[in-house]
Amino acid sequence: MKTNGILDMPDDSVGVVTTEYFTFASPPGEMGLVSGRKLGPITLAYETYGALNAKRSNAVLLLHALSGSAHAAGFNSSDDLYPGWWDLYVGPGKTFDTNKYFIICSNVIGGCTGSTGPASINPETGSEYGLGFPIVTIQDMVNAQYHLVRHLGIERLLAVAGGSMGGMQALQWCISYPDMVASAIPIATSASLSAQGIAFNEVGRQAIFRDPSWNGGDYYGGKKPEDGLGLARMIGHITYMSERLMHEKFGRRLQNADLFGFNFESEFMVESYLHHQGIKFVNRFDANSYLYITKAIDYFDLKADYGSLAAAFEKVTADFLIISYTSDWLYPSEQAREIVRALRACGKHVGYTEIESDTGHDTFLLDDRQTQRNIANFLRSQFEKHG
Amino acid sequence: MKTNGILDMPDDSVGVVTTEYFTFASPPGEMGLVSGRKLGPITLAYETYGALNAKRSNAVLLLHALSGSAHAAGFNSSDDLYPGWWDLYVGPGKTFDTNKYFIICSNVIGGCTGSTGPASINPETGSEYGLGFPIVTIQDMVNAQYHLVRHLGIERLLAVAGGSMGGMQALQWCISYPDMVASAIPIATSASLSAQGIAFNEVGRQAIFRDPSWNGGDYYGGKKPEDGLGLARMIGHITYMSERLMHEKFGRRLQNADLFGFNFESEFMVESYLHHQGIKFVNRFDANSYLYITKAIDYFDLKADYGSLAAAFEKVTADFLIISYTSDWLYPSEQAREIVRALRACGKHVGYTEIESDTGHDTFLLDDRQTQRNIANFLRSQFEKHG
Repeated sequence: MKTNGILDMPDDSVGVVTTEYFTFASPPGEMGLVSGRKLGPITLAYETYGALNAKRSNAVLLLHALSGSAHAAGFNSSDDLYPGWWDLYVGPGKTFDTNKYFIICSNVIGGCTGSTGPASINPETGSEYGLGFPIVTIQDMVNAQYHLVRHLGIERLLAVAGGSMGGMQALQWCISYPDMVASAIPIATSASLSAQGIAFNEVGRQAIFRDPSWNGGDYYGGKKPEDGLGLARMIGHITYMSERLMHEKFGRRLQNADLFGFNFESEFMVESYLHHQGIKFVNRFDANSYLYITKAIDYFDLKADYGSLAAAFEKVTADFLIISYTSDWLYPSEQAREIVRALRACGKHVGYTEIESDTGHDTFLLDDRQTQRNIANFLRSQFEKHG
Repeated sequence: MKTNGILDMPDDSVGVVTTEYFTFASPPGEMGLVSGRKLGPITLAYETYGALNAKRSNAVLLLHALSGSAHAAGFNSSDDLYPGWWDLYVGPGKTFDTNKYFIICSNVIGGCTGSTGPASINPETGSEYGLGFPIVTIQDMVNAQYHLVRHLGIERLLAVAGGSMGGMQALQWCISYPDMVASAIPIATSASLSAQGIAFNEVGRQAIFRDPSWNGGDYYGGKKPEDGLGLARMIGHITYMSERLMHEKFGRRLQNADLFGFNFESEFMVESYLHHQGIKFVNRFDANSYLYITKAIDYFDLKADYGSLAAAFEKVTADFLIISYTSDWLYPSEQAREIVRALRACGKHVGYTEIESDTGHDTFLLDDRQTQRNIANFLRSQFEKHG
């Protein structure tokens, strides 16, 4: 049992970790973006767990979803109450076994947890970018991560892995840097966001736009658009859960009463839960980053970008493990199967697992044994092949 | 071809109809509500189409969904561009054949299209009720409609029919007034709203609450909370459509461009569509009514109200045609089957049709031949039995 001061940490925790920051501004000083605009200097927040082996063949890059951060595992300080977002999967003996692999988790540009984003200072103006920040795409996020991975001395990643938007980044990594990726684990994701997905992202953005405190994106130092961002999160959260999970977790139970209040207070447990999620979120996330990151997800479309999925995957060298969940209605299994079919038609090695699950899109963040076993087995075989 | 001035109306239109208003204030002058509060005088807006027969045995009561009104068919004036909400189903020779049946469509209390609701004048204060309006339930809506039906001289309805919240009212009619309902056609509905349904209603309400123009419900005569109500409608609209319908109707196509704009303007067709729906809605609906009616839907729970579905249905005499749609994820077929099983266990006559459909919850509002045929056949057999 490791001790981190307040908490006793289990033996399979990576313990206290420090988020690191990599800034690249070397020539040409700016990175060209898909939009045609340039951004720089760029900082990426990242964390690492485990050690790079002598052959530099055991590096695994974790890529996070919309609201994630570089902090995937362990605790950032000895009095942290909660560990990183994928702590159930990352640690000694866990799925991403830090005794075997060198795990990197990189944040994304556009984010708000240490990487360059709309809340960063624009060097040209000396104040926050706000809406002056350029629209970034999943390709741009990956291009920035490329610099980080090279900076860490890694020429080929054993694997890239992530769920939801993290899965989009994993796919993009294989396409943008085919020689640098030995294998990929895209989870609960799609080759392009559905119309319904765009619709949900747009109502989330509208919740922010319509909050007067948003003020055209210029709110730093003043009142933050917490009402709008909190509402956006509440909307999002509904889509991350399955109807069945909501039914089993909350049903129609009331939070603090036996009888209806006959007023507009939140009274159903499911309402309180969503409010709680909204409030938690506004304390840790920037509303403008929510706009930029959802827009990057909306824009992700491998078919449009490359003409077809076959063309997108043509030069890919990675082996794939693709995972989807039966109860995920935001990224339904059919969207995973479309990727699988396209990769197989290109002659790539693809394992596909559709996991029976009642817990919806966010299953990959939960303690799901099937997800863990599938990933661990795939990683082991890839390490035997490439390690 | 009938002519209504500007438009040439097809022969199967009911033509120009006038919305009527029934106010009841007779002893005790107020109607007791489920909450324990009282409301009165109460006005209900309604329309009728066709003629009551001599035996008064051909009356069919139509019950509308969240955003519906008394105006189910025809045109309210000769320059109306669009007909009533169920015009595809109501008219000479149509599903609800006005040559055979006397069709009544009643609005609900709590609404904003002619019936007593939060935008009505509170006789005690002389100004709009606003949040002073009592919370009403589906039971209360039906109890008010009872007075209207009796006022029209009808002792027994040949049928009650409606989709979504209209289906809830249809179920409640059979339970509250078992001797007055010969048959019922609840469509795309449930015996209780799911946790996910409550969740979506709550985020819609929060969109209104968080609009500063809402002002605690006191905005009449001033700026209306259009941002909040429009956003609530956008959220709702996503749930009324299936993912497949959104895909087929809009996909990832852009509205006015070939290339991404790399800004936060709405550019995907699905975004423009939702914005259009939001804007249309705020011109015809009251934000406070949206709050009250969604709350009534949330509260609907036959199991909780009566102890069990078996107890709820025990005294029901109506025959049933229950319809659900395979692509309706807001009121999935399983919720219809739960009603069917409970009614059959009570020995009631129940036909159930699950219609293969790609068009989601709102299929019952569309020109769906299977829905129309099923209803028409059921009505015919009921009229043969009871007419």
